[in-house]
Amino acid sequence: MCHLFVGNMMSGILDLQNNLAPLVADFAGLRGVDAVKVDAACGSGGAALRSGLMAVASGELESALVVGVEKMTDRHPHEVTAALATAADADYEVEMGVSFVGLTALIMRRYMHEYGWKHADFAPFALNAHANAVHNPFARLHHKITVEDFEKSAMIATPINLLDASPIGDGAAALYIVPAESVRGGTRILVAGSAAATDTIAIHSRADALFLTAAYKSAQEAYKQAGVGPKDIDVFELHDAFTIMSALSLEACGFAERGQGIRLGLDGDILPGGRIPVTTRGGLKARGHPVGATGVYQIVEVVQQLRGECGQTQVLEARIGMAQNIGGSGATIVTHILKKD
Amino acid sequence: MCHLFVGNMMSGILDLQNNLAPLVADFAGLRGVDAVKVDAACGSGGAALRSGLMAVASGELESALVVGVEKMTDRHPHEVTAALATAADADYEVEMGVSFVGLTALIMRRYMHEYGWKHADFAPFALNAHANAVHNPFARLHHKITVEDFEKSAMIATPINLLDASPIGDGAAALYIVPAESVRGGTRILVAGSAAATDTIAIHSRADALFLTAAYKSAQEAYKQAGVGPKDIDVFELHDAFTIMSALSLEACGFAERGQGIRLGLDGDILPGGRIPVTTRGGLKARGHPVGATGVYQIVEVVQQLRGECGQTQVLEARIGMAQNIGGSGATIVTHILKKD
Repeated sequence: MCHLFVGNMMSGILDLQNNLAPLVADFAGLRGVDAVKVDAACGSGGAALRSGLMAVASGELESALVVGVEKMTDRHPHEVTAALATAADADYEVEMGVSFVGLTALIMRRYMHEYGWKHADFAPFALNAHANAVHNPFARLHHKITVEDFEKSAMIATPINLLDASPIGDGAAALYIVPAESVRGGTRILVAGSAAATDTIAIHSRADALFLTAAYKSAQEAYKQAGVGPKDIDVFELHDAFTIMSALSLEACGFAERGQGIRLGLDGDILPGGRIPVTTRGGLKARGHPVGATGVYQIVEVVQQLRGECGQTQVLEARIGMAQNIGGSGATIVTHILKKD
Repeated sequence: MCHLFVGNMMSGILDLQNNLAPLVADFAGLRGVDAVKVDAACGSGGAALRSGLMAVASGELESALVVGVEKMTDRHPHEVTAALATAADADYEVEMGVSFVGLTALIMRRYMHEYGWKHADFAPFALNAHANAVHNPFARLHHKITVEDFEKSAMIATPINLLDASPIGDGAAALYIVPAESVRGGTRILVAGSAAATDTIAIHSRADALFLTAAYKSAQEAYKQAGVGPKDIDVFELHDAFTIMSALSLEACGFAERGQGIRLGLDGDILPGGRIPVTTRGGLKARGHPVGATGVYQIVEVVQQLRGECGQTQVLEARIGMAQNIGGSGATIVTHILKKD
């Protein structure tokens, strides 16, 4: 029998529907199945997959359906901003009046100060995401942008402007997972690594605000499980909720030295034909970031790459892909590595 | 390494702290561990245990810490009432103005009408819970009540009065689970059955509003896994959020015919020395019902019974115990069976 894992963050706050799993099960034609909601803020989709994987691996379930979903547009944007802030520390960050984008802005400003980058240096992450989204029918934003657009876009929380940030939206994605040995025919995509780690929820409690320790830990564990390293990854769907997060994720996962993730963008290494292609289907920036769905979208997109279904943004001969889903400003990070069999 | 599963329903709504798992990990001295929040409304504790069990059974983790927690007293009661209602159907129940207790009141009234019971017939469930809680130092309410108290208590939503209902409160409980073979010495308590099932979230969509289909399904599956039946259960920690739920749970799990769960109370079968002792540590009614913690409390209490630690409410020679945790008005139901090795 199929069991259901639903990744979602804000249904209780924004939709007043907390007990989401039985509802999704019912409307997906699975009324009555074992179903549960997994919540790791913006990392909920990746966390739901991880819970489903362990459940199937336990032999308890024959298969699992992993659904990521978020409905964010029924409420006024200021309510959505408040809801998103519940991913941060309620007592010592949000209570002081900082929104989630405000917190990330502090990280970005510090990074620019520490390593000497200017705002335009972050543009390649946004430009690449938008350029790739044009070729993804499931992406939310289908227009390219230029460095000039990037620099002229509206300021949200200095130094983060509109084109540094992923948009609010509704969305859902799903994965069906089964034991590898039960798959007959077709291209098998194996989960070779699955790991998660946490950090303090408040940024000020971390030894280093510019290093995603949980990304480092979960990536290292996933590499170990898969028997690979950063040089073996053909495509990396990272969590570009804001451009700064792309840089930090690339650094923590071993693709760049600290403070130098920006360079991968400037040098074109992140393009579909580059050394470490990222956000090949548009990423959070342009495919969209319906929070609980994001981590599941990322896996779907890695699978599409490994199956060679990505057309103009196809990474040639992609055999090993990675996805990293971040909850909060780095408090929960889930990393998966998939391999084409 | 230990991994953390946090059962919680309302931290995002009531405490504005959605990403709870890394916070609990940090403050429990486990900063950095893999940690996730599991949400199945009032069934979150049981669902968190079930997720933890499957993860440990997968061989992926060496052990898991399962924490159930809810903090409900920082807000005005009307906000808590609204938050609890997110366990019901937002569009077709709550939107119409029905609170969660209001919904349960409709079920109770229908049950009384259908089977001819009067309100006082439900008293034994509340009296037993209060009498048992007197001997549980961790219980919230330490006073016995009489049938007269029960009948005279304040009306909340006809026919549910104050003493039919479990109180709002803060609380937490924890379980540490490891593979059975890794336990050396002491009394081993084995999880012999673990199952969950769902139903429609709205009561009006169910074929029969007076039968907990998900309780029946999950109990049958747990019985099968454990190789036991209702007659083998020595103690049953059921989900007595309201007295009516005790009757429905006993009926769905095979301890009474439909409409006759009430009789187990009237006949004294539910007392610690009875045929099927329930709420032996006070239950949701008198031990308390801090929502996400409840399902974990229930397991702790079954363990205490199987270890013979319950003093005056000890069930003699208890070897097999069951716990059932309900999310919503029956939308998610998790059943566990534990055995003394």
